[in-house]
Amino acid sequence: MKATYMYGAGDVRIENVPDPVIQQPTDAIVRVVRSCVCGSDLHPYHSMQHSGAGRPMGHEMIGIVEDLGSAVSTLKRGDFVIAPFAFQDNTCVFCREGFQTSCIHGGWYGNTEVGGLQAELARIPQADGSLVSVPGIDERNELLPSLLTLSDVYLTGFHAAHMGQVSAGKTVTVIGDGAVGLSAVLASRQLGAERIILMGRHRSRTDLGIEFGATDVVAERGEGGIAKVMELTRGEGSHVVLEAVGHMPAYEQAYGVVRPGGVISRVGVPQYEEAPVGFGSLFGKNATLTGGPAPVRAYMEPAIQQVLNGQINPGRVFDRSVTIDGVPAGYRAMNNRDALKVLVTF
Amino acid sequence: MKATYMYGAGDVRIENVPDPVIQQPTDAIVRVVRSCVCGSDLHPYHSMQHSGAGRPMGHEMIGIVEDLGSAVSTLKRGDFVIAPFAFQDNTCVFCREGFQTSCIHGGWYGNTEVGGLQAELARIPQADGSLVSVPGIDERNELLPSLLTLSDVYLTGFHAAHMGQVSAGKTVTVIGDGAVGLSAVLASRQLGAERIILMGRHRSRTDLGIEFGATDVVAERGEGGIAKVMELTRGEGSHVVLEAVGHMPAYEQAYGVVRPGGVISRVGVPQYEEAPVGFGSLFGKNATLTGGPAPVRAYMEPAIQQVLNGQINPGRVFDRSVTIDGVPAGYRAMNNRDALKVLVTF
Repeated sequence: MKATYMYGAGDVRIENVPDPVIQQPTDAIVRVVRSCVCGSDLHPYHSMQHSGAGRPMGHEMIGIVEDLGSAVSTLKRGDFVIAPFAFQDNTCVFCREGFQTSCIHGGWYGNTEVGGLQAELARIPQADGSLVSVPGIDERNELLPSLLTLSDVYLTGFHAAHMGQVSAGKTVTVIGDGAVGLSAVLASRQLGAERIILMGRHRSRTDLGIEFGATDVVAERGEGGIAKVMELTRGEGSHVVLEAVGHMPAYEQAYGVVRPGGVISRVGVPQYEEAPVGFGSLFGKNATLTGGPAPVRAYMEPAIQQVLNGQINPGRVFDRSVTIDGVPAGYRAMNNRDALKVLVTF
Repeated sequence: MKATYMYGAGDVRIENVPDPVIQQPTDAIVRVVRSCVCGSDLHPYHSMQHSGAGRPMGHEMIGIVEDLGSAVSTLKRGDFVIAPFAFQDNTCVFCREGFQTSCIHGGWYGNTEVGGLQAELARIPQADGSLVSVPGIDERNELLPSLLTLSDVYLTGFHAAHMGQVSAGKTVTVIGDGAVGLSAVLASRQLGAERIILMGRHRSRTDLGIEFGATDVVAERGEGGIAKVMELTRGEGSHVVLEAVGHMPAYEQAYGVVRPGGVISRVGVPQYEEAPVGFGSLFGKNATLTGGPAPVRAYMEPAIQQVLNGQINPGRVFDRSVTIDGVPAGYRAMNNRDALKVLVTF
């Protein structure tokens, strides 16, 4: 099969590799129908050290079950499934508490043990917990892009809003106009926020943000951006800040605009380990810092219903489509900001 | 009057200074009945640069109203009052949201504009918002020590537990066996926690912690302490961690023992600005970091009732009593850990 590998910064290639096979009785093999490129894939695209073996890429996917290990009980061949971007048994103590990305038996795609999902076929560990079937969907369904966003991007935005305790009457500031940021806008609207300030400077993206529910757009960054949000909130600051970037300037903007007693919820994978948290940043104003890798499995069923009944259309974040051979060009387009988010068709 | 001043690390003196007077129509003058020394007073006691003018000390107090500005409407002379450790109007937008330590018209005691409360008399700004009267209490009441803890220490422990979302069925780890840590144990018990692990190594203090509701005591620190808490929680970690110290090793213990999806709530004033918050500490396991200066005014009325009806006896944290002239010795005793918390009588 064809699969995507990264060999270093800027070096993405499509390789012919052996088809994956069942290794554990809890595995499934899925034929990928749609995959995509994630904003977080751009972090190694910028900084990865050269690797002779390469790193299999991709963690978002919808597809059709091709084969099942003997212990898988909730799926059958031919099922249309969504794969959350991390795998999990969905039964352990942390899964039951709604934090499936910390599953005791779970893990991540895209390494030597578990391949990536920007590929024609995928081995899915812990298939009963890691695949969610959606009856009545076929490969030509127009909802495929939106269903694919439930693998990661939309529900990552939703996780930000959920952990940030977005609710009616609160002012929400979303930092970042990438696909996760726009998804956080859409999710905040679903959770009842009336005032949603989107910080971003790419007009085509912030326009989609407005369609998703943003009430204000702030194009300025840094101190100027903070001043603008403070002005929009009568000097009070934002109840909730959803940080969908992962770089330090976004974190600094977040604690600059959060209101006393407010919440900063991060879903952009932090590209830093240390950050200000003392009296001058978080502590002095009782600001809460939360967020992490989204346990999308926890939010899947209601979101599928919202997509199927047309209440949300998060698939609008896809503005370019490539085949598997076009994936390297897709990375380039996202890296150059020519594309917001790239869909991969098979 | 006599008042306490600090002139540098280790240098606390009692000075004769002019009595405070009404400066604003919203002020009150209160004759102090009980004050005390706070763990946070020990931070400058360790590190303050020499100051020729000195810094007035103390922010905890109960007393009797002596004089009132013309705009004060809810108090009268002779009222017995509790002063929260920060002053506030208790009407601004942040006060209404329950974060009175961020009051737009509020501030802190112990500076050139507003004196300290380890003194015979105190000027209280924004008196309607900053003093809570307790009818039927006189200067000989046996509940005075517990009422004094509502000025700061007990309700700071309560704030930690409240922000940490302590509730029935959760495991709570309290880091620090000082008076705030022990208060956090007592508050966690009030909020329904059944398993309360107290990390501290001073036997007389942890014994009081057990009386306050701790179910386990971990005397080890650092990696050993983390390992012990993980062992006590079947390798899962603690749902809530209440950090009542403020130094980096306590923060490191906190993220070491917090469970995926758990909450670290800090009330020890951080003696650092930068700290780990990235994938390896908070983000990877969706840990939440919260806390800050306690808005004790928000919690005052129900806590007064709990003290008056004997449900809680937080005044047990006081294990030494001094007069105003004995305050420097009280600092020394707390600094040497000879005393847990020092009461000042007048």
